[in-house]
Amino acid sequence: MNLKEEINAIYDDMVGIRRHMHMYPELSFQEENTKRYIYDQIKDLDLDITRDFGGNGIVARLHVSDDLPTVALRADFDALPIQDEKDVPYRSKKPGVMHACGHDGHTAMLIGAEKILTAHKDKLPVNVVFIHQHAEENLPGGAIGMVKAGVMEGVDAVFGLHLASHLPTGSIGYVRGFTQANADSFSIEVKGKGGHGAEPHRNNDAIVAAAHLIQQIQTITSRNVDPLKSAVISVGQFKGGSAFNVMPSAVHVNGTARTFEPDVRELVSRRLEEVCEGVGKSFDVEYDINFHYGYPSMKNDLDILDYSLEVVSRDVSFVGELIEREPKMGGEDFAYYAQEAPGAFLMLGTGNAELGTDYPHHHEMFDMDEEGLKAGVEMFVKFVMNFGKR
Amino acid sequence: MNLKEEINAIYDDMVGIRRHMHMYPELSFQEENTKRYIYDQIKDLDLDITRDFGGNGIVARLHVSDDLPTVALRADFDALPIQDEKDVPYRSKKPGVMHACGHDGHTAMLIGAEKILTAHKDKLPVNVVFIHQHAEENLPGGAIGMVKAGVMEGVDAVFGLHLASHLPTGSIGYVRGFTQANADSFSIEVKGKGGHGAEPHRNNDAIVAAAHLIQQIQTITSRNVDPLKSAVISVGQFKGGSAFNVMPSAVHVNGTARTFEPDVRELVSRRLEEVCEGVGKSFDVEYDINFHYGYPSMKNDLDILDYSLEVVSRDVSFVGELIEREPKMGGEDFAYYAQEAPGAFLMLGTGNAELGTDYPHHHEMFDMDEEGLKAGVEMFVKFVMNFGKR
Amino acid sequence: MNLKEEINAIYDDMVGIRRHMHMYPELSFQEENTKRYIYDQIKDLDLDITRDFGGNGIVARLHVSDDLPTVALRADFDALPIQDEKDVPYRSKKPGVMHACGHDGHTAMLIGAEKILTAHKDKLPVNVVFIHQHAEENLPGGAIGMVKAGVMEGVDAVFGLHLASHLPTGSIGYVRGFTQANADSFSIEVKGKGGHGAEPHRNNDAIVAAAHLIQQIQTITSRNVDPLKSAVISVGQFKGGSAFNVMPSAVHVNGTARTFEPDVRELVSRRLEEVCEGVGKSFDVEYDINFHYGYPSMKNDLDILDYSLEVVSRDVSFVGELIEREPKMGGEDFAYYAQEAPGAFLMLGTGNAELGTDYPHHHEMFDMDEEGLKAGVEMFVKFVMNFGKR
Amino acid sequence: MNLKEEINAIYDDMVGIRRHMHMYPELSFQEENTKRYIYDQIKDLDLDITRDFGGNGIVARLHVSDDLPTVALRADFDALPIQDEKDVPYRSKKPGVMHACGHDGHTAMLIGAEKILTAHKDKLPVNVVFIHQHAEENLPGGAIGMVKAGVMEGVDAVFGLHLASHLPTGSIGYVRGFTQANADSFSIEVKGKGGHGAEPHRNNDAIVAAAHLIQQIQTITSRNVDPLKSAVISVGQFKGGSAFNVMPSAVHVNGTARTFEPDVRELVSRRLEEVCEGVGKSFDVEYDINFHYGYPSMKNDLDILDYSLEVVSRDVSFVGELIEREPKMGGEDFAYYAQEAPGAFLMLGTGNAELGTDYPHHHEMFDMDEEGLKAGVEMFVKFVMNFGKR
Repeated sequence: MNLKEEINAIYDDMVGIRRHMHMYPELSFQEENTKRYIYDQIKDLDLDITRDFGGNGIVARLHVSDDLPTVALRADFDALPIQDEKDVPYRSKKPGVMHACGHDGHTAMLIGAEKILTAHKDKLPVNVVFIHQHAEENLPGGAIGMVKAGVMEGVDAVFGLHLASHLPTGSIGYVRGFTQANADSFSIEVKGKGGHGAEPHRNNDAIVAAAHLIQQIQTITSRNVDPLKSAVISVGQFKGGSAFNVMPSAVHVNGTARTFEPDVRELVSRRLEEVCEGVGKSFDVEYDINFHYGYPSMKNDLDILDYSLEVVSRDVSFVGELIEREPKMGGEDFAYYAQEAPGAFLMLGTGNAELGTDYPHHHEMFDMDEEGLKAGVEMFVKFVMNFGKR
Repeated sequence: MNLKEEINAIYDDMVGIRRHMHMYPELSFQEENTKRYIYDQIKDLDLDITRDFGGNGIVARLHVSDDLPTVALRADFDALPIQDEKDVPYRSKKPGVMHACGHDGHTAMLIGAEKILTAHKDKLPVNVVFIHQHAEENLPGGAIGMVKAGVMEGVDAVFGLHLASHLPTGSIGYVRGFTQANADSFSIEVKGKGGHGAEPHRNNDAIVAAAHLIQQIQTITSRNVDPLKSAVISVGQFKGGSAFNVMPSAVHVNGTARTFEPDVRELVSRRLEEVCEGVGKSFDVEYDINFHYGYPSMKNDLDILDYSLEVVSRDVSFVGELIEREPKMGGEDFAYYAQEAPGAFLMLGTGNAELGTDYPHHHEMFDMDEEGLKAGVEMFVKFVMNFGKR
Repeated sequence: MNLKEEINAIYDDMVGIRRHMHMYPELSFQEENTKRYIYDQIKDLDLDITRDFGGNGIVARLHVSDDLPTVALRADFDALPIQDEKDVPYRSKKPGVMHACGHDGHTAMLIGAEKILTAHKDKLPVNVVFIHQHAEENLPGGAIGMVKAGVMEGVDAVFGLHLASHLPTGSIGYVRGFTQANADSFSIEVKGKGGHGAEPHRNNDAIVAAAHLIQQIQTITSRNVDPLKSAVISVGQFKGGSAFNVMPSAVHVNGTARTFEPDVRELVSRRLEEVCEGVGKSFDVEYDINFHYGYPSMKNDLDILDYSLEVVSRDVSFVGELIEREPKMGGEDFAYYAQEAPGAFLMLGTGNAELGTDYPHHHEMFDMDEEGLKAGVEMFVKFVMNFGKR
Repeated sequence: MNLKEEINAIYDDMVGIRRHMHMYPELSFQEENTKRYIYDQIKDLDLDITRDFGGNGIVARLHVSDDLPTVALRADFDALPIQDEKDVPYRSKKPGVMHACGHDGHTAMLIGAEKILTAHKDKLPVNVVFIHQHAEENLPGGAIGMVKAGVMEGVDAVFGLHLASHLPTGSIGYVRGFTQANADSFSIEVKGKGGHGAEPHRNNDAIVAAAHLIQQIQTITSRNVDPLKSAVISVGQFKGGSAFNVMPSAVHVNGTARTFEPDVRELVSRRLEEVCEGVGKSFDVEYDINFHYGYPSMKNDLDILDYSLEVVSRDVSFVGELIEREPKMGGEDFAYYAQEAPGAFLMLGTGNAELGTDYPHHHEMFDMDEEGLKAGVEMFVKFVMNFGKR
């Protein structure tokens, strides 16, 4: 098998798929046309396909033998509520919706891998599960539904790729540790007693109480969390009052909490409750607090990560430099798969300043260097083809 | 002169005037019809009338002799942006506008006084200036314009009345001291550096800085102001951020500051600036602060107050009990007149639970017990008739 | 009776008494020699004397007739733990103890009044109770014990004088309102969990918790107390930790709380408890709070005050200017007497820059202009002699 | 060479040396007898010894050949101001001074290594520098002086051992990363204006200002430091005021700041200054801040660490389990050596519950399982003997 030639042979198809999806993006949990389109691309391959799996998801199984281990590859396919401002032929045709994070590219690469790997079914050292996931961008995410529906049953390892416009095309970014944080949020209502600003003694000042709350929250990070571990608690929103001289009866404080370890996550959640209770007592105010659990954190499995880095650096055609990165406190629902089987999640560089594909993700000018598709499919295929040989 | 009979004789007229104004209220600085209406009521009296005085104001002078002192009586005539919800024949005909503070009654009483006093011009011991003031409800208020236009020139004492729905009809409320506070406001913008909530070290958290600002503001009252003096600083509004996980680049903190003495007012203004500067340094944020000077405080002149209480309690017809009240931290632009001549500002009870005229001022059901008009005009007339006899 | 001559006649005696006491000061509750000395000065007068009254107190009654009202005059006689640094013949002979507040002068004046008034027993319009009180400087004070022992039984009015080095000799300072505040104190222990400063997550930071407590205390004054009333809460002492890198297991926060009205006093006491409870919840720390009730506030009775000012300004020999003063938030246990009968507490000027008697009270150079003794005894005598004539 | 036998042969000597030092401990920078005692132990060995090197330090060089690399081994020898409360024959004879951290053991092991290695000079693949360091416990520490005096000139690698009572005897603890933090301290004086607690407006409340300062300091950790990096700022001491009702003119806030990276260290130092400046502006107080740079952080060199772990796990006689540990935020001046040459700093288990040698370091009952000396000398010798063979 000459992988390089095979990839070159399907490159135009991959570009076509990516561009079609780019023109017809769909928001999370609303991917009706997208899921049909993806199905159409793979329905004639030698795959056992299940549609509407755990939602709008599609699972395509390439079963070789019950005696072999099973590897899963995942790509997501939803878009974002952003207006595409690029001037390109494949610009989004849907106002206010755009593939601004690169999930169109993820899907094109996974379909490429499906084509190549089905063509070599007899030589595969593993069974493969191709996971086409809907709704990564919005809580609760599509992954958890697909996991609950059983997508990871029998899977021995799982791999994910994500485009990275801040890395040069073909380079691979990886982290020896946490690739994603627990990305939780909280919303707090502090309820005082409204009234005229000139008569504070008749009212109960919810704004002052909430200001104290925000300061006490700082001490969770500064005093309660092990300094050798990481936690961020940021209040993004403070909404209180509608007139300068009237004290409001309630204010809202909303924020995000990022952690890695489960115990730190629980510590933060518990301490937020406690400081609310304390502020309630101190200022005789009532409060509601909701701690919303977001995507869990994910740590690359070191064995799987080392395997993936080793095989992609062997006989390289399209994959370039391997770049070690620091952990990040962003969120991704790939973490749900990695809770079921050891996994690795890698960054695939698609940034190219000359082409203008180095805008940040979620930017209205976001685009990808499509050459990167080749490296991506090369990785997917190598992860599978070498797995049994470890 | 039998004052009681004279008052009874004009009572129906006063009620008519009050009800007409109640049906056709006009907002501050927009009193086009009101000023014409008032003029029509007094144009045939033996008065020297100047229209559009310092705005929509009307000044009516009753000149007796250059050798006599001059007394000013003031009534305001603007209405409020409140929907009248009463079911009475004289309900406001203008949607969303209402005489909910009683300025219609003030005007009816002053016109009553003009009628009685002009009829006794030969017996008056003083000259009189009748001040019909527009725009008391909204900054910068009508008083300051009328003062600047010279309404207080040559005036030796000034008297004002205000309806009080929380006092029983005919009773008089007074304060030995401050009747109004310096009613100032402030608006602060704290400018940090926005960004993702998961990366606080790349941003500059304006919400945390503003929370500290609010706490430092508490210490102005608790530590800097003489505890034997009064000051209130209330933040009524905290506007910051539009998403739970994005740190805003700026937040707004708006509030009111109430004081009595000029030095405390300046202390509060200066300290607000200083804590902003300190928070700016501590958190490396920029800020804008605007301190808006509102109506100044007013203290009843003790001589004039004692005089007014004495004369109204002599040979009483309609005036009832005299009730000493605590100082209040509300604002009123009568204070501008009292900066020019010694003055007294008294409360006239018009509350009557049986009639339902005891709703608070600025309430959508506000009404007055019109019997109170008699006590009000009795006071105005007595203030004038007895002035020379002190 | 020529009061002036009588006062001049006993002036040297008063000076002698004052200087003797100045040389032999005794601390509160330890006035063994002082009480004997005072007794010796008055034992031969026509007085009914009770010793060790409610402690070290001495009560001397001048009973004229059961039909007459009774007036009480009070002077205290304890000293302070201050080293006398004056270079005068009557300098304290006791190291570290000093009459630095003028109680020696108070006693000399009261003895002077006893001498004059007993000499005129037949002309007195009232019975008189002379109260020689011990232990004014230290809680719980001597007054409460004397009141409990019955010193105020049958008393119709009570008068007290206090030297004032900040007023010129012979002038009288008075307040139309509160002369003293509720002078309470509080001590709070915040108990966290000590440990190494590099491991905050294993400890519980009592210093940070106490810092929040201090800030929350500010809001009692700024938000809970009626801005038209007065309250001061000052933390004078923060004791925490013995090494820069070890977090202490507990810290102590001690302070004073000054108020006038009983409801404000209770509000402050209650809110201090609540903010402690809130901080306890927020930071998971334990706490002990003790609110120590000190001397209660005192308001001059307006009738008694007006009487006293009127009589002292009539036929004046030694009393000078009457000076109205602002209320003060200091404490004095004269308040306990005034809870039993209407009372007035006046300041007697003894400040004289040329003599160097204008150092503040409690200063190591404190001294009095002894000429002031004449005005003081004149006041005491006049309060009594004119009482029936009101 | 049979290392095991050689170690057993000198074991009693090592125990004797350790126990002698334990009985005669000396505080940092006062090690007069200790340095003489150590010299006496090694003066007859084939070593080039320099005394009083950079202070009380002793450097012993074993020069084999200019062509060989040079390895340094370090042991410290000062004691602590702690009262020895153990009941053992070798208990400290000096009241209040004790080898409570194990430096006596360090020295005994290094002398053991000197004896063995000098006996095999002809077979050594490296030159060796034996560093006997004074004054590790107290800033500025002895290491910096010895480094400045040139102890690390020509050294290619440096090794250090530290007893660890929390690890079982013979086990080795190591960290893949930071073994020590930048251990800095700060002392802040906040200068307000003292005065009576009842008159806050005449004073300037340094305690409230310092409470705000402490809260602002929390935000350095919670908002300014990269959440993926570590920083601890703990205030261990707050000293303010001597009476509950007197506001002090100044208060002192002392604390420790622990970081790893130089940029975080500088950020913390700079932000501490800025919050002081901000509090100064906000509260109109003056301040002094001193940031005291302590021992720098140290990161094990990964090559040297891997080498050391490999050689000590080969042909093991006394060394037991290798235990990976988390980074620690404690301080040690071994870091100064590691700034000059790649180094590794390892923990040597000496904890044995049956012997009672598992009390924490710096505890008054601290002791060591002397069997651990064998593993320690085995490590030192192996680090040297295998170095050339890498």
